[in-house]
Amino acid sequence: MTEKKEFGIAIIGCGTVGGATAALLTESATLISERSGMTLTLKYIVDVDFTHAEEIGLSESLFEKDLEKVLADPDIHIAVELIGGTTTAKTVTARCLEAGKHVVTANKALIAHFGTELLTIARENDVCLAFEASCAGGIPIVRALYDGLIANRIDALYGIVNGTCNYILTAMTQNGQSYNDALGEAQRDGLAEADPTLDVSGMDSAHKLAILGSLAFGRKVDLEAIPVSGIDTLALQDVVFGRELGYIIKLLAIAKRMEKGLSLIVRPAFIALEHPLAWVSGPFNAVSVYGHAVGHTMYYGRGAGGSPTASAVVSDIISVALGTIPLLFKTLNVWPEESKPAVQLSSMDIHSRYYIRLMVEDKPGVFAKFASVLGSHGISISSVLQKEPAEGSTGPVAVPVVITTHEVPEGDLVSALQEINTFPEVKEPAVCINIIDEHEENL
Amino acid sequence: MTEKKEFGIAIIGCGTVGGATAALLTESATLISERSGMTLTLKYIVDVDFTHAEEIGLSESLFEKDLEKVLADPDIHIAVELIGGTTTAKTVTARCLEAGKHVVTANKALIAHFGTELLTIARENDVCLAFEASCAGGIPIVRALYDGLIANRIDALYGIVNGTCNYILTAMTQNGQSYNDALGEAQRDGLAEADPTLDVSGMDSAHKLAILGSLAFGRKVDLEAIPVSGIDTLALQDVVFGRELGYIIKLLAIAKRMEKGLSLIVRPAFIALEHPLAWVSGPFNAVSVYGHAVGHTMYYGRGAGGSPTASAVVSDIISVALGTIPLLFKTLNVWPEESKPAVQLSSMDIHSRYYIRLMVEDKPGVFAKFASVLGSHGISISSVLQKEPAEGSTGPVAVPVVITTHEVPEGDLVSALQEINTFPEVKEPAVCINIIDEHEENL
Repeated sequence: MTEKKEFGIAIIGCGTVGGATAALLTESATLISERSGMTLTLKYIVDVDFTHAEEIGLSESLFEKDLEKVLADPDIHIAVELIGGTTTAKTVTARCLEAGKHVVTANKALIAHFGTELLTIARENDVCLAFEASCAGGIPIVRALYDGLIANRIDALYGIVNGTCNYILTAMTQNGQSYNDALGEAQRDGLAEADPTLDVSGMDSAHKLAILGSLAFGRKVDLEAIPVSGIDTLALQDVVFGRELGYIIKLLAIAKRMEKGLSLIVRPAFIALEHPLAWVSGPFNAVSVYGHAVGHTMYYGRGAGGSPTASAVVSDIISVALGTIPLLFKTLNVWPEESKPAVQLSSMDIHSRYYIRLMVEDKPGVFAKFASVLGSHGISISSVLQKEPAEGSTGPVAVPVVITTHEVPEGDLVSALQEINTFPEVKEPAVCINIIDEHEENL
Repeated sequence: MTEKKEFGIAIIGCGTVGGATAALLTESATLISERSGMTLTLKYIVDVDFTHAEEIGLSESLFEKDLEKVLADPDIHIAVELIGGTTTAKTVTARCLEAGKHVVTANKALIAHFGTELLTIARENDVCLAFEASCAGGIPIVRALYDGLIANRIDALYGIVNGTCNYILTAMTQNGQSYNDALGEAQRDGLAEADPTLDVSGMDSAHKLAILGSLAFGRKVDLEAIPVSGIDTLALQDVVFGRELGYIIKLLAIAKRMEKGLSLIVRPAFIALEHPLAWVSGPFNAVSVYGHAVGHTMYYGRGAGGSPTASAVVSDIISVALGTIPLLFKTLNVWPEESKPAVQLSSMDIHSRYYIRLMVEDKPGVFAKFASVLGSHGISISSVLQKEPAEGSTGPVAVPVVITTHEVPEGDLVSALQEINTFPEVKEPAVCINIIDEHEENL
């Protein structure tokens, strides 16, 4: 028989994920103990307001407003930071680590901004900081990188890692809704925050990319150096034209090993309908990882929500209690605080295919003019889709011209479009969207 | 800084996977040591014939025919069983464990048949037996069950776990090839064995299902009690009719927790084109796992081949060297040798929707007769597709009638079809294929 071990847990922050984690630990205590061989005892739920905790029926005997009491309690081995944000969460995490508690967190912003600093504090205090739930909710993708794929040199990683954005883009694609209508619906369905900026701007995806990129490549990724575009300026007509060309739009977080360094970007991007990420719809997340030995692997599941995220949080709690995460934290050389800084390419150095939409005056010779500018910047056209002016329109109207290119350095395209945007025939600045092909395995 | 540790490795059996594992350990030694913090030293390649080892350029200094020497060498900490089959492989694995070596294996037949016995020997000798590579090649699915999803009660698992079958079915579906033509092509492309029986009969999938089911449910699964059908009797016309109805054919390994026990089956089955496993094509594998907290998660990648399988083998070697697998082997209660036996439902108790094809004489009243028999067994018809007799045919010809049913217990359907098969209008025994809907999350 295995040896039973008891671990005292404090959950700090009782919102959606905190509540679901408390519920999973208490309601599934027998199941978890049966499977894991560990007894995890939830002793405190720390917060300033217990409205949500009361609503979901958590026991009042767990409620504690005094963090100091928790820090001083020698029976607390693991603190679970589920406050969110980077101010209080950072202070609390640091204090827990300094008090000799292991910390488990679901906080991507915290790890992306302050992971290096906090991991260093953890190491100094001989405890560890576990963050499976920070990336792609319930999907065990962090573990895949430091455990299941550890024998691989990781060559690339492509993620749909923000459920809110994927839900909105799916609604735009499948129902023909505008961005604003789709966002409104997501907010009504509880799938977008009242202030959705962090999600729709792409920043949340960048946080996850910084974390996953660091682990995948064993290099310290600088969040600030990741070029980030969101979905908040996306026009429905581009989604529609993309579909006509056989593409579907996704917000992708991409990390690739290139000759000169790492290319890390977050972009709304067109992928072919046959692309392995094209079917990932609604609030689901998926991450494709390409290893030099394993080839293409992909991990799919719910990237947010209380219960799926709690699944990841509790798997970390169990692994900390078992001692596997502490062991890996001591031994592996993939943790960012001990890694060299990554060489990160600027967006100008990124090579990609592009979708370009120009709104132009419908008169002879205009297209030839654009084609000539593109050609002079070394940009080769792959296809052109010119739409008729709307029926019944009179006089000079702007018609959309959609051009797709072969692979070009983004810097060259930006220069060409700057030139084209100055033409009097161009009625709106050009819209430019990456087209991302399926990554080739390197087997 | 992390502490460097050296581990001596012996690979036993140098075929495709053995060769690829040796190559990964030697060519990527620096990479693996950098990432894992471990130095893994390949000291022996044990075999009776080194033709393949020589062909791929492995160093002759590693070649060893005498297993006894390896067993007696105290510098060998981990033996890697890559012999295949269940005779020599079993003896060798047992002897290595008894000699105090940890064993890593990719051998699904060995674990499915003798896992309980071998895990017991491992436990008695205070070593462990790791088998990530036994299921779905490079996909870290074994780990997902005992680590990333450990906080979940697993409700169901659906796998495409045989690349040979998936390659053949993809060719039948996409190119309209017959089973025999598709098999021949797979053999020419090195994706099917000269004797493909183990794959196409579904037995290989059953091996993997027994292993994954044991871990998912923490119960000892009896391989012999799994109802198994293969793809070797599949007619192209059923693949085509299925497509007309919006379905695609896949060989599925399914494990579900039911009220009365576990339902484990291997079957060629129709799934809707929108089903999350429908896009998994060619030699790729995927496993969907449904947990009570996490909902639907899915794992995708190459299920066979030297290098992808070696990725899984080496991740196990590293985890054994690090001590994480030994720790989990000691602590978790999911390992089959210490679990209660599973209560496994017979195929007659399985509830499913079905596709039925009858070849019948084209005359009035025949269909009503079948419908009446199905009705008398409580089987409700969902749709009917009757095809015209081939043009120019004269006299009484057999025409295909395709019926899909609502969900019924398989026992009832079998009884009804036994009755229908005796009718003089029925020219061939009815063909019957499961229709598997997307599993509902239980969140």
